[in-house]
Order: sequence, then C-alpha cells, then structure tokens
Amino acid sequence: MTQSVEIICVGTELLLGDILNSNAQFLARELAQLGMAHYYQTVVGDNPERIKGVVKVASDRAQLLIFTGGLGPTPDDLTHETLAACFGVPMVEHPEILEDITRKFAQRGRTMTANNRKQALLPQGATVLTNDSGSAPGIIWQPHPDLTILTFPGVPAEMQRMWRDVAVPYLHSQGWGQTIIYSRTLKFWGISESALAEKVNAFFDLQNPTVAPYANHGEVKLRISARAASEAGALQLISPVEEQLRQIGGLDCYGADSDSLASVVGTLLKTTRSTLAVAESCTGGGLGEAITSVPGSSSYFWGGIISYDNAIKVRMLDVDEQDLEAHGAVSHTVAKQMAAGVRSRLGTTWGLSITGIAGPDGGTTEKPVGLVYIGLAEPDGVQSFEHQFGTSRGRDWIRRLSAATALDYLRRSIINKLLIK
Amino acid sequence: MTQSVEIICVGTELLLGDILNSNAQFLARELAQLGMAHYYQTVVGDNPERIKGVVKVASDRAQLLIFTGGLGPTPDDLTHETLAACFGVPMVEHPEILEDITRKFAQRGRTMTANNRKQALLPQGATVLTNDSGSAPGIIWQPHPDLTILTFPGVPAEMQRMWRDVAVPYLHSQGWGQTIIYSRTLKFWGISESALAEKVNAFFDLQNPTVAPYANHGEVKLRISARAASEAGALQLISPVEEQLRQIGGLDCYGADSDSLASVVGTLLKTTRSTLAVAESCTGGGLGEAITSVPGSSSYFWGGIISYDNAIKVRMLDVDEQDLEAHGAVSHTVAKQMAAGVRSRLGTTWGLSITGIAGPDGGTTEKPVGLVYIGLAEPDGVQSFEHQFGTSRGRDWIRRLSAATALDYLRRSIINKLLIK
Repeated sequence: MTQSVEIICVGTELLLGDILNSNAQFLARELAQLGMAHYYQTVVGDNPERIKGVVKVASDRAQLLIFTGGLGPTPDDLTHETLAACFGVPMVEHPEILEDITRKFAQRGRTMTANNRKQALLPQGATVLTNDSGSAPGIIWQPHPDLTILTFPGVPAEMQRMWRDVAVPYLHSQGWGQTIIYSRTLKFWGISESALAEKVNAFFDLQNPTVAPYANHGEVKLRISARAASEAGALQLISPVEEQLRQIGGLDCYGADSDSLASVVGTLLKTTRSTLAVAESCTGGGLGEAITSVPGSSSYFWGGIISYDNAIKVRMLDVDEQDLEAHGAVSHTVAKQMAAGVRSRLGTTWGLSITGIAGPDGGTTEKPVGLVYIGLAEPDGVQSFEHQFGTSRGRDWIRRLSAATALDYLRRSIINKLLIK
Repeated sequence: MTQSVEIICVGTELLLGDILNSNAQFLARELAQLGMAHYYQTVVGDNPERIKGVVKVASDRAQLLIFTGGLGPTPDDLTHETLAACFGVPMVEHPEILEDITRKFAQRGRTMTANNRKQALLPQGATVLTNDSGSAPGIIWQPHPDLTILTFPGVPAEMQRMWRDVAVPYLHSQGWGQTIIYSRTLKFWGISESALAEKVNAFFDLQNPTVAPYANHGEVKLRISARAASEAGALQLISPVEEQLRQIGGLDCYGADSDSLASVVGTLLKTTRSTLAVAESCTGGGLGEAITSVPGSSSYFWGGIISYDNAIKVRMLDVDEQDLEAHGAVSHTVAKQMAAGVRSRLGTTWGLSITGIAGPDGGTTEKPVGLVYIGLAEPDGVQSFEHQFGTSRGRDWIRRLSAATALDYLRRSIINKLLIK
C-alpha cells in the first residue's frame, strides 16, 4: 500500500465555525503539489479524549499525520501533551525553546508568563520544528518506525512558513514527495455539467492524467491532473488530453486556470483593437464591475450607463418611450435600444446591455423573475438574446449569471467574427 | 451521553485544496447557534471504500451525520449509493424527483441527460430533502432508530438554503436544538478593530451574553451571543448589552445582522424621500452593483455613469477638460465635478462619485496605488474626501473599500442632515 498523509486540525473555534479552515486547504494544496497521497482531513476540538480517538483512527490509516492548532500557551492547548499520552511517553522540557521564547518576548517588549513555559515541553523523542515567526514551536516525531507526526501552530502565517522552511525539506530528506501532481483546469460556459460530462465521459476513466468535472454558479470546469517527476513531465501527459477536451468543448470552453470570462473578453477586444461600453439595468453595475476587475481594462473598456430607472433609459440611452410602453423595459426591443444607445453615446465598437427581472419582486406570469434580455450592438447591427435563469435562484445569483452570460455572448460574437475573416 | 452531530464533507476537490471548506464552517456555526453538540468534522474523497470507513467511525460516535457533496450527476458523485451500501439497502428511483429535475431543465431551456436520472435514485427508506435552487436533492434518512443522516449538495448556496428551509425545521421537530444560542452582530465602519476593542474592552469578560470582535475587509463587527431556552429569552439578555454598545459605537455603528451599508443607505434615502445617482471610475460599476444588491433599490436609485475613460468623464459628466489636465482624473476637483455632473445629468437629490487608482499599475509617488477621491453632491453643494487605502491591499480590495467608504460618507451625511433638522 502507498504511504499516505492525514491532516488533523485541532481547535474548538473550528467546531464553532468562528474561522474558516484555511490551514487544511493550504496543506492539501501543498501535499497535492508534492504528489503526497492524502485521503482524509479531520477537525477535532481541544479535548484530550477526542484527540486520542482521532489519533488512533488516523494512525491506522496513514503513515504521516500533520497536526495544526493546540500549541499555544493557554490551558486549552493540549495537542503535544495528548500526543505524548497517546504513545505513552513523558513530556520533556527543552531549555533551548525556553531561551528562544524568552528572547522573543524581550524583543517585543512583552514579559513572558508562566503559561509560556508550557510551550517548552515536548513529547520525549520529538525534535523541535522551529517557529521563527511565533512563540509556539512544532514537533517532528516518529513515535514508532511506521508513523511520523508533524505539528504546527494554528496561526496560518506561522504554519505556512514552518511548512515551507522546515517541514518540506525534512519530508524530501525522508523520501516523501518525489513525484508531483500538476493540474490544468479547463473552464466552460453555456453548457451544463451533465451535458459536458456526457460528451467527455470516456476521459473520466483515465488514470494519469485524471479528468474530473466541477460546477459552480453556471460555470463548469474540467480538471486534468497528472502525476510525474517534474512539472514538465506532467505537462507532457496533460497536453494531448487538454487538446482533445478543447476540441470536444469547442466554443463552450472559454479558457483555463486563472482565465475569467472578463479576462478572455478583454484579450479578444485588445487583439481586435475594439472598444466596449455597457448599459445595465438589473445588474446595476455588476457587468462593468466584472469587466474592470481585469487590470488594464481601461485600454478597451470606456465605461457605461447604469439605467436602473426607465427615465434614465430614455434620457441617457435614447430608448424609445413608446417602445418602453409597448414592450416593457424587460424585452428584446429595449435590450437592443440600450445596447445601440450606449454604443453611440460613448462611441465604442461594441455596446453590451442587460435588462431583466432579478427579483425577488417584479415578476409576472409572462415575465417571471429570472427573465433577462441581453443586447449586443456592433457596427454590423444589433442582436438580443433571451434568457430564463429560473425563479428559484435568488437575486444575487441571477445578477451574476446575467453579467457572465452577457460577457459570454460578446466572447462568442468576437470569435465568430474572427472565424469568418 | 448527549446526542452529538458530525459533519462529513465529501469531495476530492477538498483533498486537493482546490476549494475552501466553507460548508463546514457554515454548518458548524449553524449547529452552534442551535446549541447542538458537534465534536468532529471529516473530509473524505469521492471514494466508496473510504466513505464507508468514515461512516463506520462517525456512526459509532454520533447520532446525526450531516453530509455535503457527492450528490451531482457525474459518475464520481457517490455519496447516496455508498450510504445505501453502508446500510445494505437498494437504491430506489423517485419519479417525483425525476419530474422536478425535468421541469427545472425545461425552465432553464436545457435538455436533461441520462446522467441526471442518477440523481433521482435514493437509498430505500430515505425521504427527499428538496433542493429548490439546484437539481441535486438531498436525503433525510434514519437507517436505524439511533442514527439520522442528512445529505446536501456541495454548492454552498444550494446547501445553505436547503439547511434553513428544510433541515432546521425537521431537526426541531425531532427534538434537536432545544436550548439555542442566539446572536446579534453589530456592524461598524470607519473605526479599526483595535480602536473599537479599546472602547468596549470591559464587555469581552461577560459570560452570558458573550461579546466577541471580528474584522474583515475594513468592516468591524461585535457579536453578542446569548444561550437561552428561546429566542425571546436570548434577546432579553442581549438587548441591554446591545444598547450600551450602540451608545459607545455612535455613528461608527451603522447597523446589525443582515444590514449592509447599501441597505442602510437605502433606508435613509427612502425615509428622506431622496434619490441617488453614481459616477464611477476605478470601481467600474461596483458602487452601483452594491447599491442595487438591495431589493427595491429602484425606488431611490436612478442609475449612474461608469466613466472609466477620461473622455467619458468630459462627455457624459461635464468634467472640465482643463481641470482634468491640471489636477488629473484622481483629484478632489474631478471627484466633485463627477458627483455634481451625474446629479444634474440624472436629476437626483444626491450624486456620489469615486475616482482613484486601484492598481496594480498607474501609481506614482504623488498619487500611489490606493489613493481614492470620493465626491458627494447635494442641493446645498459638493464635498469631496481623500482616502489612502494603501498600496499593499490589491486591486479587488481597494475597489471594494472604495465603494463601501463612499456609501458610508453618504450614510453619515444623510444622518447629519436629519440631526440638524
């Protein structure tokens, strides 16, 4: 059986939900990059009996246990003494730790308390995992030949530094993490997770690289993960699979890794030397906000009109009052006029508009909450698109989906123009 | 022994560190508020054998197991079938789920795939925990009298809604969570956590209710938590403390619980029967987005101009070209002219503007990244405010702080006007 690692986070504050368990995520990502198999994470409170139970279960499943939390000076910090009890060894005071703590307190002009002496006590046989940024040291300990234990304080900054400076070099020296796992994530818009899964089903059986789907707020992702000796080796395994998946995904695949719809649209606008303006109703600025979240967006995004009130649609976007009357603000006609209006008012290549019913109120049977029209104006004319995001999704989600979908229409339109040429 | 709960999050993406386990934090906080004892959280991958092992361990320790994740339509979503296998029952298809999924796909104009049929299969004896916002339902299941199992999808928005709408009422009906922990959170803007902590230090020693400070992204919160038999009983303990804390906080305390700066400003605009328009440069729409995140904001928010490009500031906001030259776009002068311009162009009571350097580029020694000017126009005149949010905070954070700070200036101005009257 392959050696495996287990992460155990100790802290009642985690059980109370006072803090997010960012330490588990950090360590998980590090282990993945080191190619160290890691199958379980456990959170347990500052309680000796329960910690003992967790150590029992984990040490039967894994060869390396990584603890965070419970190393502080207060009486409820029990990780080290509980570990000593688990393996029936006494706690031993380390004078060098005591010195170190005393020195650090002096440096910060604080006086050391009796509590802090406690932090100099470690299980017999454990070596110190030094903590340069805080007072609580961790341990590197092999209570028996088949089990290694590393402990870190719960403070993320201290834990991360100790991990990188001390723990990783130690693990390499012990033969851990000789292979790495490198991942590439393809991102899709405009296709459901299940529909995409059907198209790429065969890839889910691959062993190296593996392919796994994720979905979140309308976006679907495929993660391609390869295990290899180096990043270059992993990329060699990933590239052919990525190429096939991009082929299958077609236009629905908008990018990879850190790409966002806004960043991809930005790149397309730059390469086509074109500019963009937006007219927003139900998103109230969310589309512009998304576009300008990309550094350097000022080179292609000129601005926009937030026409939340109908009077503003008429006054600032030249939407026809009769059409507003006849078709309502949430309609193909008004979406088109908003897009054309902002394009001519601001003088850009593209005009992109959104008008819809984000709810919770304002829906009718013909025009329910979640109904959104997107308008897209360009030199060759104006189009509009109708979308029904569903009445059940809630205001924030409908607004986010509307902005992303508008960007996706622009993305597809620019690409199609490029393909025609 | 008291009944206890265990949270089990299923998902290889958690083991790879791709996502933060926010579901565990949400559920942990909810359980704490319900006064339900909760001693362990476990994360395990989408692997039947390992999930079985975790269920075995957890069902020996707890009487209620809460699962998140692994309910999706793809082949690696295995939670329900693995649970069925754990307790030796078959999977049974639920036509009503199939109908529901089909309806949702139709509503969203998408066609259902064979994969989605899988989501209609539940362990025999389990009842459906309905999911109104997504396709994957959860279950409420008592595989034997001493064990209850709840499952939720991994998508936080869906899970949270199902928890509040269905699971909590069910748990109450089963006698869970009889003594409750009820909390009230006071929210502050414009004061640092340490400065506020100094003012309210004495309150941190209280036992029931307890008072604890939190801070994130410029907002400071004080949570007042009381343990009692009922919400009414808890409120009786909380109210006097809340009153004193509000006294001490003064204008820095902008609201409580679900209040946001945008919702508070909205209420103030409604009560003063005044209207608002915005002019945004570096926030690119984020201010309007925040204002319109409040349902019903159309009654006081008319719209705005996103003047990302300087030409738009001149053409759409009547900013003086010479002043733009002389003072630069990021200046008191231009902030004032943007606010006045959008107010007169849109014809609202208030005009609120933001112009600044969000970075990462565009900073100079005189005008570093993080420098932001906020303009506020009203019938009595125009003011502007300078802010330095620091070069280190990053583009997103600077933009969010700018929008929130602008709303806070408007909030304080409206309140001061009310106080003068």
